[in-house]
Amino acid sequence: MSNFVCPGFRFAGVHAGIKADHALDLGLIAADGTASAAAVFTRNRVAAAPVTLSRAILARTRGRVRGVVVNSGNANACTGPQGVDDARRMAALGRDACGGHALVASTGVIGRPLAMDRVERGIAAARAALAPDGFVRFAEAIMTTDKRPKVAARDVTLGRRAVRLVGATKGAGMIAPDMATTLTFVVTDAAVAPAALRSLVAAAVEPTYNAIAVDGDTSTNDTLAVLAGGVGPAAPRDLRTLGAALTDLLDELAHLLIADGEGVHHVVTIEVRGARTLRDARLVARRIAVSPLVKTAISGGDPNWGRVLCAVGNAGVDLEPDRIALAIGGVPVVARGTAIDGWDPAAVAAVMKRPAYTMAIDLGAGRATARHLACDLSHDYVTINADYTT
Amino acid sequence: MSNFVCPGFRFAGVHAGIKADHALDLGLIAADGTASAAAVFTRNRVAAAPVTLSRAILARTRGRVRGVVVNSGNANACTGPQGVDDARRMAALGRDACGGHALVASTGVIGRPLAMDRVERGIAAARAALAPDGFVRFAEAIMTTDKRPKVAARDVTLGRRAVRLVGATKGAGMIAPDMATTLTFVVTDAAVAPAALRSLVAAAVEPTYNAIAVDGDTSTNDTLAVLAGGVGPAAPRDLRTLGAALTDLLDELAHLLIADGEGVHHVVTIEVRGARTLRDARLVARRIAVSPLVKTAISGGDPNWGRVLCAVGNAGVDLEPDRIALAIGGVPVVARGTAIDGWDPAAVAAVMKRPAYTMAIDLGAGRATARHLACDLSHDYVTINADYTT
Repeated sequence: MSNFVCPGFRFAGVHAGIKADHALDLGLIAADGTASAAAVFTRNRVAAAPVTLSRAILARTRGRVRGVVVNSGNANACTGPQGVDDARRMAALGRDACGGHALVASTGVIGRPLAMDRVERGIAAARAALAPDGFVRFAEAIMTTDKRPKVAARDVTLGRRAVRLVGATKGAGMIAPDMATTLTFVVTDAAVAPAALRSLVAAAVEPTYNAIAVDGDTSTNDTLAVLAGGVGPAAPRDLRTLGAALTDLLDELAHLLIADGEGVHHVVTIEVRGARTLRDARLVARRIAVSPLVKTAISGGDPNWGRVLCAVGNAGVDLEPDRIALAIGGVPVVARGTAIDGWDPAAVAAVMKRPAYTMAIDLGAGRATARHLACDLSHDYVTINADYTT
Repeated sequence: MSNFVCPGFRFAGVHAGIKADHALDLGLIAADGTASAAAVFTRNRVAAAPVTLSRAILARTRGRVRGVVVNSGNANACTGPQGVDDARRMAALGRDACGGHALVASTGVIGRPLAMDRVERGIAAARAALAPDGFVRFAEAIMTTDKRPKVAARDVTLGRRAVRLVGATKGAGMIAPDMATTLTFVVTDAAVAPAALRSLVAAAVEPTYNAIAVDGDTSTNDTLAVLAGGVGPAAPRDLRTLGAALTDLLDELAHLLIADGEGVHHVVTIEVRGARTLRDARLVARRIAVSPLVKTAISGGDPNWGRVLCAVGNAGVDLEPDRIALAIGGVPVVARGTAIDGWDPAAVAAVMKRPAYTMAIDLGAGRATARHLACDLSHDYVTINADYTT
């Protein structure tokens, strides 16, 4: 039996033929009854048709749905009125397959019409394949340039009842802060009303999916949805426990996401301390994480700390350069805005060979902190993205 | 005789030994008399010591200086109190060499102390080498990863008097909008008061140096300074003529700069039309220009227009996706937010092989326009930047 079972939910992932090869490209989640649902979506103004439609479905149903239908290989974005019709048709087919309203999501190449005959056959096949242990196949069916399916699970006790959360995520480029910038689906058998679930999701996304960056581009299709299938009201204390577990789960998925980012060889945790405000701390952490010059230094394993300070200065935050301190992988490098006498470039270069390490920046201006996940900008990223549609 | 002579100015470029090889690394400009001066500097909060000092010199002298002293190979940034002392010493040596106040600028690696003995010997050698035809050697002395010196000249008639403008610029990474993000020096024998010169420079920078991007990182050392050596007041009409010539000259230098950007093989002019406001037009143009996914598509010659629309959507501008039109190199690709029936990917791919072409975006929302220069994100960029200090 799969480790990624969640009572009250069945899952499927099938090959519908939207992708050229034999890869899975259509995923379905079906709840046994109506589930509470909450989601965050891309802030890109050129949002894909399924994003606009899923927003409308959540509003119309007041956050009560039966499932999710997803295709990969085609984003159904920038597809005009035909794309809107196709997203509606896909949602209607999903509704039939799940026995109630279904959210809809798409990911893949932008600007090509969906092959709706294949989507239709795929949804029929997925409906027939729905099974309690189908979650990893679902996770595989939402992949694009991802190297592997990315799933995680948590068990928590609410009151005296054990509940589960299982989650799947996909990347792997167009990962940027300010939104989920990915497709991510979490289901749980916890009981929580839609409004409470919305609060939990909003809080859990901020330090996790809104604090990662591969390349700083936010996609047209980002969707992070959580479905809770349990019945009955939740106590405030249970909501806190559930929120903590959801944040923890999303944190694990966000780590998996960035580690599987396009051309990523190093995952670097940017830790900012000593900021005047939380906003300042986040702006500085994000600016370091998206700086091409920091990212190429990470790629080259080059202890070029000046680029980190240069990125700090570009964050648009009022600061005193002479107070900045920096340590890389625990090795002190900068104090009072300049290199520490006798700092050890070889020790830092050795740290920067690791697949994961930390850059800790202290602004010396206050008590606020923030964390951001960053990665390298490598030749592989250029190779993957210079030749994606052709 | 050089084509880059400007009456009233002498120039030098020498090898001081700040760079390891035999490259020129110290440049000097000296005016025969006091010149009006105006400059724009980096907005990076971690500004280098020479930037802070040159700002102070311009304030103290009310925009009247005798010259400029520049070194390459070392940015004198993030160098603490020693860096401040070194910049002051360099300015004092420059003042002696020029016979009056000198602006000071540095470019190169961040965070290493300047070898002041070499700077001192270099300034002495440059002083001895000052000559009317030394401008191209000066341009060579300010290079870092630039492949060649970049100079341009203009001749205009003010009243009945012929005047010259000659300019030099260097890049080649850390080129971003929102500032000059480069070292650029222009001298002219036109007569214009400091306050009027400041207005001319501010206006000329906006559509030129503030509308180019190589990688979106703004450096710690950016300086663009203009010195006008002529004597006497300028008529308003002459100021307009001079401003137009300065804008034109900076436009040519900005083109040279981006064409010589790190790993750049394609210079793409982003033309935005139909925006509601100038601000909207500029935000959209810049967002396209800095999108890593657009830049890798340019690198791969991949007519992946969806990434351009995705970048438009990320500009933070209120817009109707269904009104967007896009043409690449004059070939229509998108209308009403989606691909035009029968558009010709092969024709667009052929355009994208060219060293220079245009992407024209119409937002269909108003009459405002903006232009931005963009380039590819290539393997060569990663190679150059993954291994800069080591």
